[in-house]
Amino acid sequence: MRYSKLFGQTKKSSPAGEVTVNANLLIRAGYVNKLMAGCYSYLPLGLRVLRKIENIIRKEMNAIGGQELFLPALHPAENWQKTGAWETVDVLFKIKSRTGRSYALGQSHEEIITPLVKEYLDSYQELPLFVYQIQEKFRDELRAKSGILRGREFGMKDMYSFHLNQGDFENFYEKAKEAYLKVYQQCALKAKVTEASGGAFSQKISYEFMVLTDAGEDDILYCQKCNYCINVEIAEFSQGTKCPKCRRGVLKKARASEVGNVFDLGRKYTRDFDLYVYNKNGEKIYPIMGCYGIGTTRLMGVIVEKFHDERGIIWPESVAPFKVHLLTIGRSKAVWQFSEKVYCALVEKGIEVLFDDRRKTSAGEKFADADLIGIPYRLVVSDKTVNNRQIEIKKRNQTKTSLVLLADCLEKFASPALK
Amino acid sequence: MRYSKLFGQTKKSSPAGEVTVNANLLIRAGYVNKLMAGCYSYLPLGLRVLRKIENIIRKEMNAIGGQELFLPALHPAENWQKTGAWETVDVLFKIKSRTGRSYALGQSHEEIITPLVKEYLDSYQELPLFVYQIQEKFRDELRAKSGILRGREFGMKDMYSFHLNQGDFENFYEKAKEAYLKVYQQCALKAKVTEASGGAFSQKISYEFMVLTDAGEDDILYCQKCNYCINVEIAEFSQGTKCPKCRRGVLKKARASEVGNVFDLGRKYTRDFDLYVYNKNGEKIYPIMGCYGIGTTRLMGVIVEKFHDERGIIWPESVAPFKVHLLTIGRSKAVWQFSEKVYCALVEKGIEVLFDDRRKTSAGEKFADADLIGIPYRLVVSDKTVNNRQIEIKKRNQTKTSLVLLADCLEKFASPALK
Repeated sequence: MRYSKLFGQTKKSSPAGEVTVNANLLIRAGYVNKLMAGCYSYLPLGLRVLRKIENIIRKEMNAIGGQELFLPALHPAENWQKTGAWETVDVLFKIKSRTGRSYALGQSHEEIITPLVKEYLDSYQELPLFVYQIQEKFRDELRAKSGILRGREFGMKDMYSFHLNQGDFENFYEKAKEAYLKVYQQCALKAKVTEASGGAFSQKISYEFMVLTDAGEDDILYCQKCNYCINVEIAEFSQGTKCPKCRRGVLKKARASEVGNVFDLGRKYTRDFDLYVYNKNGEKIYPIMGCYGIGTTRLMGVIVEKFHDERGIIWPESVAPFKVHLLTIGRSKAVWQFSEKVYCALVEKGIEVLFDDRRKTSAGEKFADADLIGIPYRLVVSDKTVNNRQIEIKKRNQTKTSLVLLADCLEKFASPALK
Repeated sequence: MRYSKLFGQTKKSSPAGEVTVNANLLIRAGYVNKLMAGCYSYLPLGLRVLRKIENIIRKEMNAIGGQELFLPALHPAENWQKTGAWETVDVLFKIKSRTGRSYALGQSHEEIITPLVKEYLDSYQELPLFVYQIQEKFRDELRAKSGILRGREFGMKDMYSFHLNQGDFENFYEKAKEAYLKVYQQCALKAKVTEASGGAFSQKISYEFMVLTDAGEDDILYCQKCNYCINVEIAEFSQGTKCPKCRRGVLKKARASEVGNVFDLGRKYTRDFDLYVYNKNGEKIYPIMGCYGIGTTRLMGVIVEKFHDERGIIWPESVAPFKVHLLTIGRSKAVWQFSEKVYCALVEKGIEVLFDDRRKTSAGEKFADADLIGIPYRLVVSDKTVNNRQIEIKKRNQTKTSLVLLADCLEKFASPALK
């Protein structure tokens, strides 16, 4: 992609009213634009990152047997009335049509998936069943001040599982947990599995996946010796207490951001929608349901909160919009000709490259933009390098530069599939 | 994919209240499910088709310079008030938040894209500019009785172009038209470019892309000798009149379904949002805007209306959920072992295959389901074929069967990329 043609370039100043690092950097670097509080447009650069995050999640959900589908965002009020959520979920957007019908905008999809599964589930032998979607959700938030971490509209992967019994749910939960941890690992994040409240409809605990960051909206207590972690909302002890699990470490308090959650929904929804099967003994069974969420746009925001410096974003390679950022510095014909050659060779090899081909932009501005945009590898062709047909290469998160020949550069970045 | 594990299988009977061929077949075959009138869930099979249609469109939009982005569906009322559409667009869903804010649900995105482009457009040299998205749209329809052809929520690709002058718009319109015709061609559809009304805000004509089908909601007049075609809504002549373009053919009336449209928006939106540039002579210019839509879910519905018989859907290969449908007929161990071998070999070669591995389903039912689901090639392994290690092969739209060896079968279906 030629930067001169890209829609959504860098901005010099921070946007007014944005207090978070994620929104500030993402807006200044040209990834997102704020339509209103809690609603962001994803510009071409931002959409590339979001799609990579979605594909990482999709791959892991498919690997544990998840089947992808796509449910409407516009729901009949009746489904929400049936579970009681029409009255109790305060963030539910409600719509009146011009013919007087009432609809809800999906903030989650238990109310839709449960009657859908009821229509297709014929036998206990079809359980367990795992279905998921990646889709926009809507929440009537009182305040939306965390950038893309908490939106009135936001992207989400929501999976629902259906099981014959509690043991089967617990088994699958372990698999889902591993899949979630793989997702975060691929996004270069360390997430802590955290005990939390089960929400309005459950006395059970739920599990949240928490990434330590000051931008978070939660406080957690975690053990410094084992993997015990609990949301302070439900904790019965405080910082400094001995860990109730390993009894060796001491609990430490930290600010964290939720990047995923798992709810044991029990039989709440299967009972509400009368979804049942007969087991092999002929007993009527209401399946146990689990719900597994990952906010895709939030995950993008948390990655920015974790990976940035004072100059801009530092994307992990797995989710970077491009692998390399090629900058032309200088005005000589030789520099531009060699830059074009390098760009075309990279494109031809299938290497994702953003080419800063702006003619009137200063070197300083190009370097500053490259740091702000945060692509993992910066390549520079300049008067200094072109004489030896070399390219200067630097990692975004390092200061060391080195000079390489084009052939070596292509070898270094060639995607494994093409090698 | 093993059919025994697939969520969303075939139904024996037609769904109540569905009068269209598209909804009837798509629901019975397990592609979609109706949540309420005008709102459909896309089951795993249906989502595969929809994603293929989206990717065909995406490729052609990228080829003419389109840049993909993703805009919110939830819009501030102010943007719609500014253009007057808040009061005049009767299908606009309006929402009141619990804090008293008013929002609209996007039924189109001129009100969002124009101020967004205003924020980034610095110079006339950045024009023309083409941006698009593929996203759900919402319309408060009085009636929604055409299956997935007309929804309260539906998938749409909407592109917006910005030009310095009318001539540049006309040039791009020709390119966009060719791109649209390529999209339909890849979906095996013949679309007629049809003159139509420009809508509420324009005296100009617009162009609709029409596919002849009795399921359509429009009447068109088309010339049988040249490519002239006009929506009867704006035609000043009737069936049987001489063609006003070639003056040789005679106009014929037909029922058609719109699969795309182009609007010349003129300066309506750029003026409303004060989006301007200075041209090279220093003159202030409000760019000309064009809007280009393709309903992705509607396109899927039109394909079904065009390609089916009394037994079910007949997907064009380009959008079929799978390339081949493998059926095991018989109960012998040899048949099942060979079937498994064929299935694994196909998967290994990267050939998209749906494997009807149901053990208790009769041959008749499997054949009927294969015809209903409509995958282009049916492969059968049965007691009859297994002795010679052969597979029976039949195209969905032909009656002729032939017997092939596994190696020949793999050779036939291997995707070009892997050959």
